[in-house]
Amino acid sequence: MDSVELRKIGKAATSAARSLASLSGDVRNKAISNIADGLSSSRSEIVLENSRDIEKGRKKGLSEAVLDRLLLNDERIDVIARDALSVVGLSDPVGEIIEMNTMPNGLEVSRRRVPLGVIGVIYESRPNVTVDISALCLKSGNAVILRGGSEAFHSNTVLADVIRAAILDAGISKDAVQIVGSTDRKFVSEMLKMDEFIDLMIPRGGADLVARVAKEASMPSIIGGVGVCHTYVDESASLDMAVDIVFNAKVQRPSVCNALDTMLVHVSAAPEYLPKIANAFAEAGVEMRCDTRSMSILGSREDVKITPAVEEDWDTEHLSLTAGVKVVDSLEAALDHILDHGTGHSEAIVTEDTSSAARFLNEVDSSAVMVNASTRFNDGGQFGLGAEVAISTNKMHARGPMGLKELTSYKWIVLGDGHIRE
Amino acid sequence: MDSVELRKIGKAATSAARSLASLSGDVRNKAISNIADGLSSSRSEIVLENSRDIEKGRKKGLSEAVLDRLLLNDERIDVIARDALSVVGLSDPVGEIIEMNTMPNGLEVSRRRVPLGVIGVIYESRPNVTVDISALCLKSGNAVILRGGSEAFHSNTVLADVIRAAILDAGISKDAVQIVGSTDRKFVSEMLKMDEFIDLMIPRGGADLVARVAKEASMPSIIGGVGVCHTYVDESASLDMAVDIVFNAKVQRPSVCNALDTMLVHVSAAPEYLPKIANAFAEAGVEMRCDTRSMSILGSREDVKITPAVEEDWDTEHLSLTAGVKVVDSLEAALDHILDHGTGHSEAIVTEDTSSAARFLNEVDSSAVMVNASTRFNDGGQFGLGAEVAISTNKMHARGPMGLKELTSYKWIVLGDGHIRE
Repeated sequence: MDSVELRKIGKAATSAARSLASLSGDVRNKAISNIADGLSSSRSEIVLENSRDIEKGRKKGLSEAVLDRLLLNDERIDVIARDALSVVGLSDPVGEIIEMNTMPNGLEVSRRRVPLGVIGVIYESRPNVTVDISALCLKSGNAVILRGGSEAFHSNTVLADVIRAAILDAGISKDAVQIVGSTDRKFVSEMLKMDEFIDLMIPRGGADLVARVAKEASMPSIIGGVGVCHTYVDESASLDMAVDIVFNAKVQRPSVCNALDTMLVHVSAAPEYLPKIANAFAEAGVEMRCDTRSMSILGSREDVKITPAVEEDWDTEHLSLTAGVKVVDSLEAALDHILDHGTGHSEAIVTEDTSSAARFLNEVDSSAVMVNASTRFNDGGQFGLGAEVAISTNKMHARGPMGLKELTSYKWIVLGDGHIRE
Repeated sequence: MDSVELRKIGKAATSAARSLASLSGDVRNKAISNIADGLSSSRSEIVLENSRDIEKGRKKGLSEAVLDRLLLNDERIDVIARDALSVVGLSDPVGEIIEMNTMPNGLEVSRRRVPLGVIGVIYESRPNVTVDISALCLKSGNAVILRGGSEAFHSNTVLADVIRAAILDAGISKDAVQIVGSTDRKFVSEMLKMDEFIDLMIPRGGADLVARVAKEASMPSIIGGVGVCHTYVDESASLDMAVDIVFNAKVQRPSVCNALDTMLVHVSAAPEYLPKIANAFAEAGVEMRCDTRSMSILGSREDVKITPAVEEDWDTEHLSLTAGVKVVDSLEAALDHILDHGTGHSEAIVTEDTSSAARFLNEVDSSAVMVNASTRFNDGGQFGLGAEVAISTNKMHARGPMGLKELTSYKWIVLGDGHIRE
């Protein structure tokens, strides 16, 4: 693997994308179901290659949590295959007519959905991403260049082999799915400059990766997957509902981007609400990083870890069982806090007051803004997109969960009958 | 004007954008109609300032064509005011619900259209852009930072003064429309790095400006307004229709991006078609840059300028009464030529064969692809968008003509009733 080879990958992807764009949905679906079959029939090979990654990771001292995310076994391979198959059933975005109008001069003008072209994806440890993203790119008619993490190198390589054989079998060029066959980080930098070949770069990983892509990529890229998410418990909130929603947002899956980072509580609700949520957090082992006022309301408790928040807590995506807690004097103060510290990802208000809800929905400028629901719902599956490649906090192109349509562009189709412009 | 001041402009725009986003459509419309009124009542002042630009331009030796584009008189000011007023009548994109779904769990999920935030526009000589863009940005709830060309400096300054007074009168912060008060080019570079404040950069000008913005802008930017546009005359074309369409695409307004640059002619149609189009071009004074085959068909004629094409002609946006002419052996050869030399802007086929038309529509990857119509139709007004800020050749976000909707993003609005994620 060298730079010349990387550019060859780019060039081949561009050419594969061109043929993909004119293939029927049936062929693309066949390729995806072939992938599912291929995964099932290559299980033992995949498990073997995966065990090499696991062994290497163990020697390298990776945590059990990371090793678990890396692990592929028969059951997990079946789940990955089933997820790929579910993409077959989604409606085909390619060729969809978005709008069609006949102009007063008789010109027929429509917009037809077309693939973006070549998607680049740089991702970290989980090898299932290799299959998920390939299936979604094929379904949306895009070629993809994958660059997975070094920990999953052998797993990703064997998965890519399975995928490439499967799509070739459906009559699609192998080059529609390519993997960067090196974990040398210099190829990430080079990939990020290949705007000649890559139409969209999607980083799937931690804040450092996302920031690096935002800074270095010469092609459009998705900023997302990183969120300092707030839930505001309004004066008028149903406190039991607030406990459920905040608890769910924090505890149900603390390691993901739409989990709660900071809870803001109206000063009138705080005395009754804070002890309740502390009881719930106590059971789950959540650490509360409290401002002075919430600290004094909670007092000293043995069952839950309460520590004073420092300024940088408000700007921290915890990704763990830690929650910032702050008492605010008003909805306005909550909005100000979110404006100063939010990352535009997911924000929720718990309230029974429709005017508070409306103001929150209007003024919070995040990819998803919620009333009386857990921020954990900011997800392509939960929003009915059927699949998700990323959650974008960009405002251009796609915002929030990105499904198949968000991997497409459109072209204007104009049908005339000798029309000329006056 | 210094760098500190430029950053102040950026900061003020961000804050103005925030208030704009929650103003009603009525207020934004009122601001735009105030602008129209302000232009009418400030005519003499505008003409006076404009005459300073004209005088300076004349001394600088600007061509009459450029001076004419620069000129403002009572009549032109009325046209600009009328164009602004027509924006009032367009439907308000802000707050529009794009999609609304109730999920199986009862969660109500919708997407609400919101402004992008702050738009930066860098443009060249025509001062009407100052008003056009301001009206479109206000209508779509965006703040704007304008940086016009040095030739129009006094005109743009007085127009911005009129606009700012007009919007203030409607209760909108003056900072919603700001102009960079210096023609020093270093501020262009600085503006292109202000991604902290500017959400989208739109260049309106020649190829050099567009390329510079594409290369230097740290925020998303629109690539567009530059096109090497093709019309292919198929074997089965109605030749009279082909003459009309090609003539219109080349001659009706040769200085714009969707005008014809290269005409491709099927080898069977060429012997009859080429003399016909040459007759038409002769009358309009179009120079034909011909490949060997078309040259030998046309022979030597006194009425029309026929010169041999050189390789770089195929990659040139002529912006003048010059047309590349090439004979091709097949539709496939035409598609290959467009693939190699096109810029993804506007391409047309003239044909009576529906399968040729379908193939051309499928395989040409341009912002607008046309059958039996002039490429000059690739325009927001002609496509029913009501207005146009640019013609994008990007695939991300907006492609082709960009109207009001293309100046917006959306946010996901989620209404629950205590919903938590299982």
